[in-house]
Amino acid sequence: MKYPVHLLKLIDVLKKLPGVGNKSAERFAFEILNWSDDALNQMANVLASTKTHLQYCQQCGCLIGIEDCPFCATSRHNHQAICIVAQARDVFAIEGTHEFRGMYHVLGALLSPMTGMGPEKLRFNKLQERILEHHIREVVIALDSTLEGDATALFLKQQLEPLKVHVSRLAFGLPMGSSLDYVDGGTLAKALAARGQF
Amino acid sequence: MKYPVHLLKLIDVLKKLPGVGNKSAERFAFEILNWSDDALNQMANVLASTKTHLQYCQQCGCLIGIEDCPFCATSRHNHQAICIVAQARDVFAIEGTHEFRGMYHVLGALLSPMTGMGPEKLRFNKLQERILEHHIREVVIALDSTLEGDATALFLKQQLEPLKVHVSRLAFGLPMGSSLDYVDGGTLAKALAARGQF
Repeated sequence: MKYPVHLLKLIDVLKKLPGVGNKSAERFAFEILNWSDDALNQMANVLASTKTHLQYCQQCGCLIGIEDCPFCATSRHNHQAICIVAQARDVFAIEGTHEFRGMYHVLGALLSPMTGMGPEKLRFNKLQERILEHHIREVVIALDSTLEGDATALFLKQQLEPLKVHVSRLAFGLPMGSSLDYVDGGTLAKALAARGQF
Repeated sequence: MKYPVHLLKLIDVLKKLPGVGNKSAERFAFEILNWSDDALNQMANVLASTKTHLQYCQQCGCLIGIEDCPFCATSRHNHQAICIVAQARDVFAIEGTHEFRGMYHVLGALLSPMTGMGPEKLRFNKLQERILEHHIREVVIALDSTLEGDATALFLKQQLEPLKVHVSRLAFGLPMGSSLDYVDGGTLAKALAARGQF
């Protein structure tokens, strides 16, 4: 005896969530069956209205509500700094540190020839425009410390050279609270090479 | 800078899924933002129409579509056997073995004084009714091998005594494909005690 048709549909849509396979989707579906009508409708409404309540800023690419982009506010222009991130989500992580008060630029992707991500997909022209328009003096590259992140950072550095801006990248070193036993050799080498006066 | 309001709402509804905490819900939410309108509406529709397309059979408690309950079909009466499970989901697992062809009875819960699950929540009266109505001869207890499962099985055995039915319970032993190194002592003891001719 197979699952009822609608249950299969429910499992299918839940499987679209990242990292959710058949087993997890089944678990979600059977839990959802116990929800009240209100809870079900609420979830359905929130999902259906997502695109009308959330948008990406045309300028910086940040995720915002239906109001003007807070990341492009005039108060942020004064710092003459722009932070480059791969995806809109990263902006919130950096904002959480309270260490950066300039503007952002979301690339939307990292260079990755394997998956067909070439330089033309990176919103780079827009970045150039904004750097000139806002008289930016520092570009902070806040990309992953992966092969794709490194390649993209290098590409950006080369492309930004003619613009005569100061280009920096997030520091590499030991994560906070880490034990040397568990830190990989590459990280340790970077941390040693960049050791600072104590 | 906090997340936009609607994103927080989306994260909140996703956190209601079992085992999904803040981090996973955020991951789901940012993935959902990349979905097409069609995919979003499809998920919303499937969720909103769940209660109209799925129901629990009034007799056996199994999860069914809007058609007559296939688990209560007349062809299943002949076996004069009823299998007791804790939740509707278990029925599909047992059906998957093709070892049982009788009827089912979903208790809806296991006895658990800690969480206020007393005998009155177990749909036991309905079980008695059905045993008499269908001249049941064997009751197969297919409950978890946990404290709650054991307590519920014992309770059922005692309560079913006056009905003069044969009461059986799923066998305990080594799971298929297991290595003795990794089997716990309790399981091994049960498997030894119930050893059979080879």
